[in-house]
Amino acid sequence: MQIIITGGGGFLGQKLASALLQASIPFDELLLVDLKMPPRLSDSPRLRCLEADLTRPGVVEDLISDRTGVVYHLAAIVSSHAEEDFDLGWQVNLDLTRQLLEACRRRPGIRFVFSSSLAVYGGTLPGTVTDATALTPRSSYGAQKAACELLVNDYTRKGYVDGLALRLPTICVRPGKPNRAASSFVSSIVREPLQGDTAVCPVPESLRLWISSPATVIANLLRAATLPAPGDARSLNLPGLSVTVGEMLETLRAVAGDEARARVSQQHDEAISAIVASWPGRIDNQRALALGFQADDSFRAIVDRFLTEDLAEAP
Amino acid sequence: MQIIITGGGGFLGQKLASALLQASIPFDELLLVDLKMPPRLSDSPRLRCLEADLTRPGVVEDLISDRTGVVYHLAAIVSSHAEEDFDLGWQVNLDLTRQLLEACRRRPGIRFVFSSSLAVYGGTLPGTVTDATALTPRSSYGAQKAACELLVNDYTRKGYVDGLALRLPTICVRPGKPNRAASSFVSSIVREPLQGDTAVCPVPESLRLWISSPATVIANLLRAATLPAPGDARSLNLPGLSVTVGEMLETLRAVAGDEARARVSQQHDEAISAIVASWPGRIDNQRALALGFQADDSFRAIVDRFLTEDLAEAP
Repeated sequence: MQIIITGGGGFLGQKLASALLQASIPFDELLLVDLKMPPRLSDSPRLRCLEADLTRPGVVEDLISDRTGVVYHLAAIVSSHAEEDFDLGWQVNLDLTRQLLEACRRRPGIRFVFSSSLAVYGGTLPGTVTDATALTPRSSYGAQKAACELLVNDYTRKGYVDGLALRLPTICVRPGKPNRAASSFVSSIVREPLQGDTAVCPVPESLRLWISSPATVIANLLRAATLPAPGDARSLNLPGLSVTVGEMLETLRAVAGDEARARVSQQHDEAISAIVASWPGRIDNQRALALGFQADDSFRAIVDRFLTEDLAEAP
Repeated sequence: MQIIITGGGGFLGQKLASALLQASIPFDELLLVDLKMPPRLSDSPRLRCLEADLTRPGVVEDLISDRTGVVYHLAAIVSSHAEEDFDLGWQVNLDLTRQLLEACRRRPGIRFVFSSSLAVYGGTLPGTVTDATALTPRSSYGAQKAACELLVNDYTRKGYVDGLALRLPTICVRPGKPNRAASSFVSSIVREPLQGDTAVCPVPESLRLWISSPATVIANLLRAATLPAPGDARSLNLPGLSVTVGEMLETLRAVAGDEARARVSQQHDEAISAIVASWPGRIDNQRALALGFQADDSFRAIVDRFLTEDLAEAP
């Protein structure tokens, strides 16, 4: 059995690959695909890395074979980028997903794990979002992810794939550099000051976020590979932790002192604030928890884990 | 200013065209497009009919011009047909809508009226559906309409079109013949017995439907041409009337007697029941009513209107 990760060179793709190689899930090949050759994170003979532009004709069709058992579709144009380049966003985030689903359809039964996003929500939301809350995206990225969820659910209902559309919480603390996601600051305001650098907070401290550590997201993605088919409704909000930006900054102070806290300056960005404020700050996770997905215990635990695992690993 | 109706040869397209030619909306051309040449319902010099396959390359691009002010996009593969032919459903119901939006995008400001459907809902619904209720389609047709709503909203948010996605109630009484829509029986069980023919009711009498007369739907579509842009959320449930199938059959008896009622036989169809039962039976219409859309007064009024207007007109 083969497992494929699109966006396999990205942060999540690499973390997931590393976890899969250590997990007890039986497979004989793990194929990482990305636009640029994915870093070879292990010398396992089960690992294969492929540089390919999946949007080129025929590439996706060649990718999926009778051996394929699980596809993690993580590749995407991130939110700010999709907002700047409308055409590219729809082509990659919608059309490529559809092409992948089509390729999988020829070999029914493939577990298709689609990484969706909180950006499917927007506008005025209830205090606690549930599975019954309407998707009202206020960004092209969110609209594209929501459209893909419809595809994943319909292909699943027809028996063409065995799909799961998992809405990932905002990941924090994400190691590395800022990216073009509107949520990039959520990690920056903790990651940079912990390393002696300054960071800008573009949103009010009162803003409530729904977050998950990288490790918890990866554990949940592993769970998605073997989860028994959960009935009709295949879109799921992954469990997360509800924190305000102010609580995050106070935790930073508690862990690393006033000096670290002082490295974060407030500089309001209306565009980013509008996008992020339109995402849910609290979600009812009963269904996901019952299915064996998990959440972090506290923001303090998330920061501690970043310090001991990610910063310790850094070169 | 030009008004275009796709699906202009269909039942709704023809009724809408007739109403537009009599309305006070200023336009100099009304263009009806359909796969088969639309019937020329009037000798008005403002009316033009065009036979065209909009899915063929370049056709949609040629259709939209600087003159175009309003596009009513009514053309679609109906529900049962889209369920049978998965590929055709997605190609016509999603891709064609997207191509039309793209063509309109080159001339910003076009009012794009998209006919969506109650089929965007499904599964376990609240007793009263609102704008905040999640779309959980249980048919490909519903998934396609929901995906198009995302496109209409995103193209509107970006300023590429001035869109409205209107979820039409089930139309009753629709004159003419049954079609491949899962809801076809909703009209049949009244229309056929009123004309001395038999009809089959495939769903329980307790099933609650959300319906609108053709005349009310047309009045609401007319309103959509000139409605001032209603903010961010461009998907709207059109007002309707909540009735059970049993209430409809009792009205039939009241209007046309026991003999007419006896022409409807109960013959359960699990597939149709499952699809139709997953649509809302009652919707909170406050927002649509505030925007000037309207509902029918009673089912009796709907039947009376069918008798005096549609049956009287029939050849």
